[in-house]
Amino acid sequence: MEADKLATLRAKLARISDIQGAYGLLSWDQETYMPPGATRSRAHQMSTLAGLVHQHYTDESLGELLQTLHDQGPNGSAEDSNEAAIVRVVWREFQKRVKIPMALIIERAEASAVGREAWKEARATSDFSIFQPHLEKQFDIAVRIAEALGYDANPYDALVDQFEPGLTYDLINEEFSALKPRLKALIDGIAANADAVDRSVLHRHYPAEDQIAFSRRLAEAVGFDFNHGRLDLSTHPFTGGTSYLDVRLTTRVEEDYLPACMMATLHEAGHGIHSQQLDPELYRLPFRYGLATAESQSRFYENIIGRSRAFWQHFYPLLQETFPQLEDTDLETFYRAINKSEPSLIRVEADEVTYGMHIMLRFELENEVINERLAVADLPEAWNDRMESYLGIVPPNDAQGVLQDIHWSQGGIGYFPDYLLGSIFSSQLWDTLKAERPAVEDEIAEGTIGPVTGWLAEKIQRHGGKYTFPELAERATGQPFTAEPYIAYLESKFGAIYAL
Amino acid sequence: MEADKLATLRAKLARISDIQGAYGLLSWDQETYMPPGATRSRAHQMSTLAGLVHQHYTDESLGELLQTLHDQGPNGSAEDSNEAAIVRVVWREFQKRVKIPMALIIERAEASAVGREAWKEARATSDFSIFQPHLEKQFDIAVRIAEALGYDANPYDALVDQFEPGLTYDLINEEFSALKPRLKALIDGIAANADAVDRSVLHRHYPAEDQIAFSRRLAEAVGFDFNHGRLDLSTHPFTGGTSYLDVRLTTRVEEDYLPACMMATLHEAGHGIHSQQLDPELYRLPFRYGLATAESQSRFYENIIGRSRAFWQHFYPLLQETFPQLEDTDLETFYRAINKSEPSLIRVEADEVTYGMHIMLRFELENEVINERLAVADLPEAWNDRMESYLGIVPPNDAQGVLQDIHWSQGGIGYFPDYLLGSIFSSQLWDTLKAERPAVEDEIAEGTIGPVTGWLAEKIQRHGGKYTFPELAERATGQPFTAEPYIAYLESKFGAIYAL
Repeated sequence: MEADKLATLRAKLARISDIQGAYGLLSWDQETYMPPGATRSRAHQMSTLAGLVHQHYTDESLGELLQTLHDQGPNGSAEDSNEAAIVRVVWREFQKRVKIPMALIIERAEASAVGREAWKEARATSDFSIFQPHLEKQFDIAVRIAEALGYDANPYDALVDQFEPGLTYDLINEEFSALKPRLKALIDGIAANADAVDRSVLHRHYPAEDQIAFSRRLAEAVGFDFNHGRLDLSTHPFTGGTSYLDVRLTTRVEEDYLPACMMATLHEAGHGIHSQQLDPELYRLPFRYGLATAESQSRFYENIIGRSRAFWQHFYPLLQETFPQLEDTDLETFYRAINKSEPSLIRVEADEVTYGMHIMLRFELENEVINERLAVADLPEAWNDRMESYLGIVPPNDAQGVLQDIHWSQGGIGYFPDYLLGSIFSSQLWDTLKAERPAVEDEIAEGTIGPVTGWLAEKIQRHGGKYTFPELAERATGQPFTAEPYIAYLESKFGAIYAL
Repeated sequence: MEADKLATLRAKLARISDIQGAYGLLSWDQETYMPPGATRSRAHQMSTLAGLVHQHYTDESLGELLQTLHDQGPNGSAEDSNEAAIVRVVWREFQKRVKIPMALIIERAEASAVGREAWKEARATSDFSIFQPHLEKQFDIAVRIAEALGYDANPYDALVDQFEPGLTYDLINEEFSALKPRLKALIDGIAANADAVDRSVLHRHYPAEDQIAFSRRLAEAVGFDFNHGRLDLSTHPFTGGTSYLDVRLTTRVEEDYLPACMMATLHEAGHGIHSQQLDPELYRLPFRYGLATAESQSRFYENIIGRSRAFWQHFYPLLQETFPQLEDTDLETFYRAINKSEPSLIRVEADEVTYGMHIMLRFELENEVINERLAVADLPEAWNDRMESYLGIVPPNDAQGVLQDIHWSQGGIGYFPDYLLGSIFSSQLWDTLKAERPAVEDEIAEGTIGPVTGWLAEKIQRHGGKYTFPELAERATGQPFTAEPYIAYLESKFGAIYAL
């Protein structure tokens, strides 16, 4: 690989990455500090920057350079060197991007802007008919994007691949199918013993300021670096920023529900650490990890660590110091309370056990609509039927059913499975880590999270978007991606809590 | 002017303006919320966006379009229509930009980045020799930029014109020369009666939080719209943002000096209102008002309004409510205290009377160095000599002398005169406003600032960068720009305070 060609490539990519960084700030600011009246100009700025990224990423001279470097192969540098990875990943991304006509990209952006507003109104009034034409449009655009990108078996593959390269419907369906009946059995078992866990203590009054301060302390304790990051408030928690040197978490607070802020913060801190631990050689590149990989890290910090007994062995006494409201509650009661499982209507509030059902429902419906086996008009009914079948509850209205998520309104079709895939993968990583480092739970119980983050950084986080999700699973665990450890984790943990 | 050509032009300009908006956010964020460790990636992002602006602004197709529209003339639309102004202003800016070689722009950017760090170190250790080679470089680059841009009489003209189009050394020098002896006489008169004003009451303890809250209230009272803006803290107050719909002020607080926060806030609120009052038809254009025009507005709100007796007739009782520390102090004592004048070393802390001398000193030195009548090595001595001659004091070290301002380190040569020109122009505007609206001072005394802002919006603020400074002066006041009203204002106001 010629050094000067690679340098030219990196300069072109650095420019795209810088524009993406600026876009990241526009986006973060919109949810945190932007004055309310600035919406219109913010939309202009973001669409211009998104257009610039697309323009530079599909530039002919970039294509020629990539073609040359790709044809030369990784000679000299090993297949898994950063140099080879950059060419491989960017070449793949370039080929995808040039396939989608600019007109379709603009159409999607416009449909998203309009669709989001329609969705807001539809959800506020719980009136699906307001959203239906916009959702039909989004599914229509998604199908056309899938056609433009191409696929082997299922147009849904092309959509899934946009959010996590390397994934397909079949790969996901295989794991979900293994998971589903055992999740169902677990949910039924818990339902039969629902009173075993009482979480009323979490609903006492906990002042917002103290919650935020404590959550900040937890984020720092698990390894989030505030010299290269921030924590702010927003309606919906997210992780953004402008580069691996500037990573921004947001969280939310409920004064009458203690876990909301802490768990959102740990989740976002997981994303944040993932970003911060990037291999510095991969700085200023316009690609990052896929969304299933991302979720494997956030869920790891939120659930595997943040809802474990070991973690709270160390942190619960500190939490009690901050909140004397907890003085009458012992560690075991607290641990069980933050792990209470019960069927609920809203995905983002679901516990570890029922969460999977929310995702499988969406995955199935998306695939059926894309493959024209289900009409958008019939989505509300299909949604409610499946809620009843999987969780035994039926939404009283569409706002709490098919209208609850923003994703589809913005064209995020093929994105939902990544949430569950990440959860599944986090268990597979946890089993590997425990096998390689048997003392890890004892270390967590002493409040020492450094070795966990060190291991995750080495196996996952430092690689950024260098490997696909299936590649990462193989490299990190020595095994193909599998749902088995996740099923075992849930059965063991909740079997113990609910004495099943 | 063909409508479709104009629409194409506006689309190209909108894109540049959007990039500038994103740049504005990167810049604001760097001084407010950016994590400390993000400096390196922020520099990358800002230089990439600055490069994109330059690239788009010097694009050949933009040039051809402008040439065509310019050659067609404003037929149909009047000379002072927005359409004609857009072509006129952008054509002028385009012609300037294409004259400066890209290599020189990069050289300046790099010299600025290095120079700023050298300046910081030089100021911290009060060692001019550290800064001298960098300052020589900056003056050398400035001369080469002036040569590239071209000029009639004086290379300094080309530099001044960068910050406020339409200004020249001669135009500035004429007004400054008229001002200087009368300012000197005023300063001498005040010195002879220095004890007439006591401001010790301002140095009591005033909690930061209350100062910020009250300053925010003042900003709102004078017309700053928080639906389209914010107020935050930063080391050096400034006004930034991303568009006229998103204007961001910053301020600073000293707990033992009450005016610092209020006056900085009123000053920045003036800039902010100026931005917010833009004619909506001039939205998404990549040009804005020059810096002398800008300063005429900030100084108007800070001094003409904010240091007037009328203003405090209404607001002083409210200030006393917030700060019981002021209960023993009457309005007249307070008014005199916030207007105390005395020679001091630091420009940004100077009062209304002595401020002009700080600027004239810099204006003269810049012009002499650019015209090779003074060597950079001799600047410290020349600075100190002139301080003694103009203000009767000599800096004990260079940190409080020639090294105090950041501007030169970043290539801001030709910028300083705008500060004083703005102050001068604010008085000319004030006289015109009083003549057109005799009741205006009574209205201010009732806390009604709306008519002032309404008048300034109509005469100055709405026009953005549509007119040059001399054009604006003529249009707003019916007279050419002149220092006479400013001299009269200072002599009258301070003559009364110091019983001269």
